[in-house]
Amino acid sequence: MRERARRALGMCDAIAAMTEEPGRITRRFLTPPVRDVHALVSARMEELGMHVRADAMGNLRGLWQPDGASGRRFVLGSHIDSVPDAGTYDGVLGVAVALELAAMAQEDELPLALEVIAFSEEEGVRFGVPFLGSRAVAGRFEPAQLALKDAEGATLEQAIRTFGLDPDRITEAVVDDGAIGFFEMHIEQGPVLEAEGLGIAAVTGIVGQTRVQVEFVGQANHAGTTPMHLRRDALAGAAEWIVAVEAEARRAESLVATVGKIVAAPNAGNVIAGSARLSLDVRHTNDATRLAAVESLLGKANTIAERRGLALQSDTKMDQPAVNMDERLTAYLGDALESEGIPRKEMPSGAGHDAMIMASRVPAAMLFLRSPGGVSHNPAESVREEDVESALRVGRTFLARIASEVR
Amino acid sequence: MRERARRALGMCDAIAAMTEEPGRITRRFLTPPVRDVHALVSARMEELGMHVRADAMGNLRGLWQPDGASGRRFVLGSHIDSVPDAGTYDGVLGVAVALELAAMAQEDELPLALEVIAFSEEEGVRFGVPFLGSRAVAGRFEPAQLALKDAEGATLEQAIRTFGLDPDRITEAVVDDGAIGFFEMHIEQGPVLEAEGLGIAAVTGIVGQTRVQVEFVGQANHAGTTPMHLRRDALAGAAEWIVAVEAEARRAESLVATVGKIVAAPNAGNVIAGSARLSLDVRHTNDATRLAAVESLLGKANTIAERRGLALQSDTKMDQPAVNMDERLTAYLGDALESEGIPRKEMPSGAGHDAMIMASRVPAAMLFLRSPGGVSHNPAESVREEDVESALRVGRTFLARIASEVR
Repeated sequence: MRERARRALGMCDAIAAMTEEPGRITRRFLTPPVRDVHALVSARMEELGMHVRADAMGNLRGLWQPDGASGRRFVLGSHIDSVPDAGTYDGVLGVAVALELAAMAQEDELPLALEVIAFSEEEGVRFGVPFLGSRAVAGRFEPAQLALKDAEGATLEQAIRTFGLDPDRITEAVVDDGAIGFFEMHIEQGPVLEAEGLGIAAVTGIVGQTRVQVEFVGQANHAGTTPMHLRRDALAGAAEWIVAVEAEARRAESLVATVGKIVAAPNAGNVIAGSARLSLDVRHTNDATRLAAVESLLGKANTIAERRGLALQSDTKMDQPAVNMDERLTAYLGDALESEGIPRKEMPSGAGHDAMIMASRVPAAMLFLRSPGGVSHNPAESVREEDVESALRVGRTFLARIASEVR
Repeated sequence: MRERARRALGMCDAIAAMTEEPGRITRRFLTPPVRDVHALVSARMEELGMHVRADAMGNLRGLWQPDGASGRRFVLGSHIDSVPDAGTYDGVLGVAVALELAAMAQEDELPLALEVIAFSEEEGVRFGVPFLGSRAVAGRFEPAQLALKDAEGATLEQAIRTFGLDPDRITEAVVDDGAIGFFEMHIEQGPVLEAEGLGIAAVTGIVGQTRVQVEFVGQANHAGTTPMHLRRDALAGAAEWIVAVEAEARRAESLVATVGKIVAAPNAGNVIAGSARLSLDVRHTNDATRLAAVESLLGKANTIAERRGLALQSDTKMDQPAVNMDERLTAYLGDALESEGIPRKEMPSGAGHDAMIMASRVPAAMLFLRSPGGVSHNPAESVREEDVESALRVGRTFLARIASEVR
């Protein structure tokens, strides 16, 4: 198993060298280094006797159809694009480990057809819209999005054609009814598993997310000539609210609420701020809990603004419900953890993943691998070899269970 | 007196039309519209029988020497440069009213020589250093500053030559020992007089000022995957401190403390802030009080940072002592207020003025005129005609008192 883990990690290292920017890992959707990734992954798929194709959205797909298996197949995968200045494992690890799982399924002579998909786009960097790859596979791609433009002014349609694919055939990327489930392995990208001393966990679902832009508006004034009692300081009001947001999220169970962005105006050291615009990001697995928290936090902002004579504006930019992983598949994952002697840890994902999109089409399950230091989207991103071995063992047991049911 | 007030306001209006930017008032040091100001103000000085010259720093100076007066003279003035998109009265009003005071001194046959100075530079906009005009007159100009560059790359020395002046003669701008005092009238640029229902006040001094750059450094992390208890959120720490700064300044007598600038990084809605850099501006008339407040506020920042596991850096950018106006002259101003039936209001200035620089060379006094709405450095800046009349009446009485002592 160690050898398989090392082969998967070796593929991650090889793909890390395929980048738009020498010295940093940056691999956006359908940029030239993606051709190299396709060549490398295709070669491994062919080595495994898979039927290989790239669909019209640039997803690379390898199909293993064992003798005597039914038309039904199980889908594995993750993504091969990256954020700018990325780490080595985000997405890519899930593809590399899926290929090793397929290899083991062959060794184990599992009577289960498998499709491994290297999704072309998950991060949303090039066209500002994430999950383009899994949207196409799940039948959730909207043709109007072909007009999206990248920073250089190229449309999504042009990007697809430039890569040698045919955007008129995107609908053919949708998985047919033969697909009976989806399984994604991915680094956690957070500090929870490390803090609990665990290596892997079954993911129960993707948290719902609300994003709101909030603006406090007061009166810009001279910092020297305006006494404290005659101020309407937008930044002081915003600061009081940031503290309140953090305190409320700390009190609640499993809620995260973040003010990560602040823009004060005129933003000069000797001028009392006339306005302060902030982001609020609230996430929870329970949609009602999340919506109640957002309402409470905006109520607090109102109270603070009124007491201080500030105006308050808020604008909801995103309101995305939670997506649950399939209960049966997640229970199978938990059983597989236990049968491998690993604690049956379950946790929500605070970030979106391809599995979230695939869940709208097929039953989906997901496994997290510990992120040392909680670090991701960063060159310092890492993964432990022992956790990759655990994922391989659990994945093997999980697929055997699926195969036993399909037979 | 109403006529004199209107003439002074008319001069302000005329000068407001002399601008670098059509439609907005922007008149930086020695830019072309300053020539028009010099022409207008010179004409009025000559009308008053003054000897007119521009010194090598571009200060326009009119000297009135009545028959039989001694070699000693009293100096009046303010500045004629402006911030970008300025109002009509900041600085300019002090020059226009000074000329009307000189005209009344002539009518009253005061045996007092007067010099009216229209300072060329106070705002620090063009070369990043304020008070260039009054520094030259007070003998506090440093020749090394001739190498300062403006946004277009021109040096201060070049700017002076381009205007037709000789930078080698700046030392000749220094007032000689014949100058026995300085008096400046200026809009308050703050809301205090309006809030108290008063029109004018004697200024006791310019507050001392400390500016510190403070930075909280935590750990940038994913806003979705990092639970509240595993965060080191630099922006939340900064917010807690902003609230503490405001609370402490509110509790103290006459202290103002302002965080006007904040820059968070990476400043993205879905990332916990890894760092937050802030400005702190603290002002008080008493230097010991100010320094104690700064120490206390930085101590609070340390406490907050330690409790949150954040690193803290602070860097003092400015530490400028308070400057007192001359006690005797300020008492004369107070007496003049009373004798004109105006409440004897005294107040500190929260902002720097030419009088602060002149005070290092000669006894200085200053009179504030109410700023409606507390608005300044803004096209909406205004002044009440009745307050200009009050300033003229008080200034006249004040100069008569000076004259009676010089005789």
